[in-house]
Amino acid sequence: MLRDARIVNTLTGCIEHGDVLISVGHIAAIGCFDSARRVVDLGGAFLLPGLIDGHTHIESSMLHPARYAEAVVPHGTLTLVTDLHEIANVCGVEGIEFCMRWSARLPLEMKFMAPSCVPATSLETSGAALNAGAIRALMRKRDVIGLGEVMNYPGVLSGSAEVLEKLEAARGRPVDGHAPGLRGRDLSAYVAAGIMSDHECTSVDEASEKLAAGMRIMIREGSSEKNLEALLPLAAGETYRRCMFVVDDRSAADLYYEGDIDHVVRKAVSLGLDPVRAVQLATINPAEYFRLYDRGAVAPGMAADLVTVESLEEFVVDRVFRRGVLVAKGGKALFPVPETTAQLTDTVRLGTLDHQALRVARTGTDFPVVGLIPGQIVTRKRMLTPGVSGDEYVSDLERDILKLVVVERHHATGNVGKGFVTGFGLTRGAIAGSVAHDSHNLVCAGVSDDDILGALRALERMQGGLVVFADGEVKEALPLPVAGLLSPGPVQDVIATQRHLEEAARQLGAKPPAAFALLSFLALPVIPELRVTDLGVVDVGAFRVVA
Amino acid sequence: MLRDARIVNTLTGCIEHGDVLISVGHIAAIGCFDSARRVVDLGGAFLLPGLIDGHTHIESSMLHPARYAEAVVPHGTLTLVTDLHEIANVCGVEGIEFCMRWSARLPLEMKFMAPSCVPATSLETSGAALNAGAIRALMRKRDVIGLGEVMNYPGVLSGSAEVLEKLEAARGRPVDGHAPGLRGRDLSAYVAAGIMSDHECTSVDEASEKLAAGMRIMIREGSSEKNLEALLPLAAGETYRRCMFVVDDRSAADLYYEGDIDHVVRKAVSLGLDPVRAVQLATINPAEYFRLYDRGAVAPGMAADLVTVESLEEFVVDRVFRRGVLVAKGGKALFPVPETTAQLTDTVRLGTLDHQALRVARTGTDFPVVGLIPGQIVTRKRMLTPGVSGDEYVSDLERDILKLVVVERHHATGNVGKGFVTGFGLTRGAIAGSVAHDSHNLVCAGVSDDDILGALRALERMQGGLVVFADGEVKEALPLPVAGLLSPGPVQDVIATQRHLEEAARQLGAKPPAAFALLSFLALPVIPELRVTDLGVVDVGAFRVVA
Repeated sequence: MLRDARIVNTLTGCIEHGDVLISVGHIAAIGCFDSARRVVDLGGAFLLPGLIDGHTHIESSMLHPARYAEAVVPHGTLTLVTDLHEIANVCGVEGIEFCMRWSARLPLEMKFMAPSCVPATSLETSGAALNAGAIRALMRKRDVIGLGEVMNYPGVLSGSAEVLEKLEAARGRPVDGHAPGLRGRDLSAYVAAGIMSDHECTSVDEASEKLAAGMRIMIREGSSEKNLEALLPLAAGETYRRCMFVVDDRSAADLYYEGDIDHVVRKAVSLGLDPVRAVQLATINPAEYFRLYDRGAVAPGMAADLVTVESLEEFVVDRVFRRGVLVAKGGKALFPVPETTAQLTDTVRLGTLDHQALRVARTGTDFPVVGLIPGQIVTRKRMLTPGVSGDEYVSDLERDILKLVVVERHHATGNVGKGFVTGFGLTRGAIAGSVAHDSHNLVCAGVSDDDILGALRALERMQGGLVVFADGEVKEALPLPVAGLLSPGPVQDVIATQRHLEEAARQLGAKPPAAFALLSFLALPVIPELRVTDLGVVDVGAFRVVA
Repeated sequence: MLRDARIVNTLTGCIEHGDVLISVGHIAAIGCFDSARRVVDLGGAFLLPGLIDGHTHIESSMLHPARYAEAVVPHGTLTLVTDLHEIANVCGVEGIEFCMRWSARLPLEMKFMAPSCVPATSLETSGAALNAGAIRALMRKRDVIGLGEVMNYPGVLSGSAEVLEKLEAARGRPVDGHAPGLRGRDLSAYVAAGIMSDHECTSVDEASEKLAAGMRIMIREGSSEKNLEALLPLAAGETYRRCMFVVDDRSAADLYYEGDIDHVVRKAVSLGLDPVRAVQLATINPAEYFRLYDRGAVAPGMAADLVTVESLEEFVVDRVFRRGVLVAKGGKALFPVPETTAQLTDTVRLGTLDHQALRVARTGTDFPVVGLIPGQIVTRKRMLTPGVSGDEYVSDLERDILKLVVVERHHATGNVGKGFVTGFGLTRGAIAGSVAHDSHNLVCAGVSDDDILGALRALERMQGGLVVFADGEVKEALPLPVAGLLSPGPVQDVIATQRHLEEAARQLGAKPPAAFALLSFLALPVIPELRVTDLGVVDVGAFRVVA
């Protein structure tokens, strides 16, 4: 029995004073009771349902699922709905099953949206492909509850057979959307195809149109994309029941220092939202959308996933109960983090990699160079002549032109895409990583082929990670041995190493404030204007390889 | 295309002016469009989703499903959720399948809640039994969406294995409740067992407690039970999304003269409820509770089940579109009512029935007599000495004591329960019916055994119905050949005959204003205090046969 609680009733919007009886991990009754086999006195603290994150890619944290749970459970997150777009692009169904197995051992329940865009495009080589048949098979798994964000909205609108087949495979379940700026007839068509939510709205106007068309709106407040302030009026309005808070992508440091969904609630309340309403957007609303009927409310029959806070305004999560068992208190996880084992740790498989493979033949004409724009992830296509050495194009440090290579790492095809980037600033060495959206091949920017080869070989030895290489040695590295994406280390270690990596990159001259994050997007051929994938230099507008 | 509509958006609560494009029975887009293959100009009429009745026993109308559709579709009802408690007590799964087959041929989509209480008690003989295995089998049928009202709440609270097994069979689906006055810990236990709704609330206070415990509240406005006025504040309040309108039981005459769910909406609006809100309680709210995700809103991808009204305040349904096809206009059904066939028309199977079978032996002590209370269906247990003739107890017209018999009619067991009723008023003849809750055996009240036998044999010849018998002949009769419960005749004919029946009963001296309705409850052994079933006179408080 949890005694003396101020219960936040997310169904009625009221706060009730009372005791909560728990039996076999579920709420048996709410009222005033004399005794129970075990009594925990909450001393009048607010008691609310465990928080639910309705849309997140946990890989963005670079944390192993066990470490992710250790980080977010003390913040009150007990259920998350994740679209494992990243790990699925590397390992396919095996990557999803890996997280499923871990979820079962942790007090953090993961529900899975089958990734709809694996591979994301035909302009890169991914580790795996999930076709409609694979989606159908995934839908038969217990914790797969829907289809992940359908980013290929041009495919939906043009009636692509492959996209429609995937939608058909998910018929009757939640299907998440991803449709920045889609309006009018296109929006009607996208919704009519069965897509039910969107997390890309940046204005109330856009969100209102999507709500009227029947979509649920996910109000996103992540590490990079922050839409809460702009969309807050929705949470206060008539249609609040069709909105929910999500984080989408959240770094380990933000999870650790700020929190997870609790941070979004806290920020919403600080911006003036009624705290009970904020809790509704973080609990019952996602539960209803995702049809998780056993959670989201403190009521009889519900799972005893419960969280306490002393003050609804300050909203600092204190106790966290999962199925009635205390799993965190005062920000500290109280559950044992299971020993991580060597699973999915052999995903960096390279073909022949030598100077010859990195060579860019001099053509005599200008070359399409990736032009960085400070503070943005969109790039410019710039036609420049790189440095020249004999019959090769090479980096030109004077003009801040660096060689940028992407090496296929899933099937040892030996594919190497070679290009150049300007604006990165390196004057020595190379930086490289196996986190490279969406296919997560190895991406490396460096001043010389020796440095580039050194960095790539370091990644191969670590079986993935992030590395700073110079002077013939690894200066700093964060091994990400799980799928080349995740670290099994404690969150504090990951954060510290990330900080050291950025510092080391700065010492080599890197200009972008988050050099590795930026590097991870330079291989993503869906964001304008120019990218490099393992297939070569991609002109995103033309949607083809141009060099 | 439906042009120039004022669209009631049940998702946002707003009214939008626009056109609606329909394709393959579904809404393709909403906006302003130039042309389409076929255009219907709505001239600015209000366009709303097809109405949904969330809880009704269609047998209360005594109409064949085809005639029921003919009656309610012009009132805008396009989906109904029905618990076929009556026909299932007579015909079991066959009765449910009968309605399923008819629904498939009609523009009225029936969704079925598996009846949870067949038989209702062990104190009577029903035609069929649905155990947990049968419920499990029903759940595999496409249009069975949950478990019907769990009336046996004592069974839930005491943890009856049979009841829990039925709840288990429905796990993961909506489960309707029936818990008049249940509060506090008992309510907690009932809800924790998985029961999700209640339609028996008579006060806001009771309903608020149930809402806080997580139940959906069905605001019932039927032919006899009318709770709308008392519960209207719920529809205007914060938790309106968890409430819906239902009719539960509605007579043919009320359907014809007043309407169905449209009548509830109309009355709610006349009582001051915002019309858009009233529409929400009749569309999106039941759709969400019953997880009918393709209806309840005018939005892309939704079924094109649509209704027009000229005025939201007057709320007179004009056009009715089912899957985009006009099926009613101006109160008239425009679809062909399929020819009804002889199905389930052999359900009155009697054993030996003669004077001997009706004989009540004189005991010399007082006899428990059913005492009617004007205007109520609860009865008093009165210990009286009936009339005496030789060694028999018989009717005593001077003191308004009539013989009341219930004859088992499903399995020809020859069971005859014999008792007496006071307050009915007959001075001549007998009235009898095959509608007798919950097992629907034959029930008859009469002044002499000759009249009773005459009435019962008339019912046997008709294979069910209602009959007034006197002077050795049938004075008036409504044949109900389908399961002894339903008439295949047009609604107007059924209504006219019902009126004639009541008039004929009055001419024999019957005092209750609705003699046949009252008669149908005299065999129902769950309403206090005294009833007669085919097993004998039942003391409801003691829950056993006492004579």
